[in-house]
Amino acid sequence: MPTRQSKVRALAFDVFGTVVDWRSSIIREGRQLARAKPLRVNWAAFADAWRAGYRPAMARVRSGELPWTTIDALHRRILDDLLRQFRIAGLTEAEKDHLNRAWHRLRPWPDARRGLAQLRRGFTLATLSNGNVALLVDMAKHARLPWDCVLSAELFGHYKPDPEIYLGAARLLGLEPGELMMVAAHQDDLFAAKSCGLRTAFVRRPREFGSAVRVNPKPERAFDCNADDFVDLARQLLPRDK
Amino acid sequence: MPTRQSKVRALAFDVFGTVVDWRSSIIREGRQLARAKPLRVNWAAFADAWRAGYRPAMARVRSGELPWTTIDALHRRILDDLLRQFRIAGLTEAEKDHLNRAWHRLRPWPDARRGLAQLRRGFTLATLSNGNVALLVDMAKHARLPWDCVLSAELFGHYKPDPEIYLGAARLLGLEPGELMMVAAHQDDLFAAKSCGLRTAFVRRPREFGSAVRVNPKPERAFDCNADDFVDLARQLLPRDK
Repeated sequence: MPTRQSKVRALAFDVFGTVVDWRSSIIREGRQLARAKPLRVNWAAFADAWRAGYRPAMARVRSGELPWTTIDALHRRILDDLLRQFRIAGLTEAEKDHLNRAWHRLRPWPDARRGLAQLRRGFTLATLSNGNVALLVDMAKHARLPWDCVLSAELFGHYKPDPEIYLGAARLLGLEPGELMMVAAHQDDLFAAKSCGLRTAFVRRPREFGSAVRVNPKPERAFDCNADDFVDLARQLLPRDK
Repeated sequence: MPTRQSKVRALAFDVFGTVVDWRSSIIREGRQLARAKPLRVNWAAFADAWRAGYRPAMARVRSGELPWTTIDALHRRILDDLLRQFRIAGLTEAEKDHLNRAWHRLRPWPDARRGLAQLRRGFTLATLSNGNVALLVDMAKHARLPWDCVLSAELFGHYKPDPEIYLGAARLLGLEPGELMMVAAHQDDLFAAKSCGLRTAFVRRPREFGSAVRVNPKPERAFDCNADDFVDLARQLLPRDK
């Protein structure tokens, strides 16, 4: 349990990798498309390359080189490059758009829905994602994620880890920064939130990059919580008698 | 059923008066406070006066006379005036704040939850309210309203009926204006939405201002739907076999 004085009232969740398993979801969508077309592609490499394009693309927005561009639009730019790179030809515009929207249909980690349902009894649950609003709303409907509020970088015109998004989330929820806890599987996200005064919970997602790449950092004492999954987080944050 | 060509994908709901019965809720909260203190106040007149202060206060923001001010802050300005006007003395700051947040605890009309649950099977459901995000999120949790997305004037820095809020809602949801239907009990809201290209559904709420004031306008052919309540709206919008 966090020990500082202000009471946590809401949890803000990173989404890609923390709530949903983007990698296996993109691989699955690729394989579905490959069966329909047919195509021969290493979809694991494709998924990793798509995700790898995401930070550099956002960096161009954060630096001001690009004007505000949604993740949907950034994903599509990267996808168009990857289709050439992986020599995937013959997709119609509708098929490309459907593939790009695979990010709207990402599947949750096995504990996510159950953990969120438990956490929702004690806290307001919001997304706080670089994904655009439409993507997050579609994903929540598709994956039945019980958000009280969908907050996105798009609302602030700033991508994480810019401070405007963490402070903006607290402001929209009517909370002091110390009443809002950022939940993420990525330590850089949490350190940025912490520097804005938010509370922090690290959730290990060792399979985010597949079973070959073990991402398994040790618990970090700088964070208020370190949890194995959302059910474990609920166990740590909610009173025992609930 | 609407007859124009584009398919409606999401419904955007006005909240005060359309989803929740602000008047009886404020009267109830006032009476609770009066029993605790005790106080003698005509709470129906108080509720009507509070609501009557809302449009002039927003108009000062819309005209630029005031900088962006949330509904919580506008409600509080009006409340402070009303406490003097109704000679309500001796409230602590915590009691005033609790009373101001009565708007976060408004109760839904009897058909609202059931109708929304039905409509949610076919559409993305969003608020589109002048209420600030924290107010709408608290209300949804309190009243168990199943929104997919909480959209507020606060996200756009514009109060209804400014066009920025209707067009901004469509943009955030990733929709063309004609794919979004505004649902409201107030014709001015719907005419403003319609002028931005949104579809429109009028829902009659004849008791919004109490049983003494019958607000009972005839169906308006300018709107795509005219419904008696949300269950009737679901009946009109959803396919029969669902």
